[in-house]
Amino acid sequence: MIPKNHPRYESLILREKIKKAHKEGYLAESGMIAHGRGEAFDYLLGEKTIETAYKSIEVGVACLLLAKKSVISVNGNNTALAIENIIELANITNSKIEINLFYRTAKRVSIIKDLFKKYGYYNILGTDDEKLKYINSIDSPRATASEKGIYSADVVLVSLEDGDRTEILTKSGKKVIAIDLNPLSRTAQTADITIVDNIVRAIPLMIDLAKKYKLKSDDCLKNLVNDFSNEDNLKSSLKSIEIKE
Amino acid sequence: MIPKNHPRYESLILREKIKKAHKEGYLAESGMIAHGRGEAFDYLLGEKTIETAYKSIEVGVACLLLAKKSVISVNGNNTALAIENIIELANITNSKIEINLFYRTAKRVSIIKDLFKKYGYYNILGTDDEKLKYINSIDSPRATASEKGIYSADVVLVSLEDGDRTEILTKSGKKVIAIDLNPLSRTAQTADITIVDNIVRAIPLMIDLAKKYKLKSDDCLKNLVNDFSNEDNLKSSLKSIEIKE
Repeated sequence: MIPKNHPRYESLILREKIKKAHKEGYLAESGMIAHGRGEAFDYLLGEKTIETAYKSIEVGVACLLLAKKSVISVNGNNTALAIENIIELANITNSKIEINLFYRTAKRVSIIKDLFKKYGYYNILGTDDEKLKYINSIDSPRATASEKGIYSADVVLVSLEDGDRTEILTKSGKKVIAIDLNPLSRTAQTADITIVDNIVRAIPLMIDLAKKYKLKSDDCLKNLVNDFSNEDNLKSSLKSIEIKE
Repeated sequence: MIPKNHPRYESLILREKIKKAHKEGYLAESGMIAHGRGEAFDYLLGEKTIETAYKSIEVGVACLLLAKKSVISVNGNNTALAIENIIELANITNSKIEINLFYRTAKRVSIIKDLFKKYGYYNILGTDDEKLKYINSIDSPRATASEKGIYSADVVLVSLEDGDRTEILTKSGKKVIAIDLNPLSRTAQTADITIVDNIVRAIPLMIDLAKKYKLKSDDCLKNLVNDFSNEDNLKSSLKSIEIKE
């Protein structure tokens, strides 16, 4: 048990969730190492949502609400940390949810599917290996997607995603929103809208904003998206990573 | 298999070693997450030995050579990454090696002991739980040490070490040399000599230097130690963590 007054309580709780997910068999060893990288970057961000992330969260939400077909991509890490929030965001933005694992095994897919069921979400996509298609006919496990989901989506929200996969998604013409704590990662650098934040803070903010922005006109949302420069936003995000003596 | 021309080949090889150590049962889940944090900090350092680390490596080596009784503390992470180098450094500097695990289990201790045997090192300390003593009578698993080793040592080299433990060691009056990629960690901040570097680079440099410095007079080595300010060195190290756009 981690005492509630521990100065790093929040961070340690997330670490416990990641370890539990590994023990339950749906998070790969590499997922744990990736979590550690995230911890370090979050630490350098001050473990708070930075100003530039609020901006890209706003644009990301607008983009999800404007989408003809949006899909939220899930893996072991984001399932472990934010399953309930992911389901809520999907429901509010009318997005589908699809499983995409870097180290895909039938067992991991099945455990994640069951976890989503446990939380009341029954229609998760990407579970049937035989029905997966290759985006742009790229013959790579990084290019697989379910026909009803990411394969035919116009907007995809990824978080803690592999750089190869993000690149394949953006090159295929889809609008990619990425949540990633490392502003220098290939995912952060290649996505259309990069949210440099911890998913446990970013997704609840997206949910709140989606509730409000649902009432806005499409034109208003389009303006938000058109006025946004991910390059500029990322450059400003980099400045928020500071070494505090 | 990771292709040798992969831009992140070295880093990926280390990651594989950490995953292997976990599969072999001697590295805890938390050790994998800790490795991820290290990866992030190493990335920000440019994955090279920084100037201030060369300085603290020099002073650390002098300190080991001057010690009446020096001990190198090992855990799952440094065993996985640098077992051969640790043995070589111990031999050259006439240091003992002692197992100290944050998540100590008899199984992990036994696997690490056997690994050191496999590499020709038979006298590893800290293996017998019943013979461990509490430093400064502090009744905590972080304060345990073997009587013939760390308990009675004047100089201890730790790497990838827990902050609580480092603090206990320094407060007990021992001189602590720490290798840690995060210059802001409690271990880095409380050690007497902090080497902000990856152990896979730092320890080989220490070995080379120890071979040369063995020929120097004690007075010369003492001057190196006395002229060193860890506080100043750490401050300069912090400046080496930079965000490269």
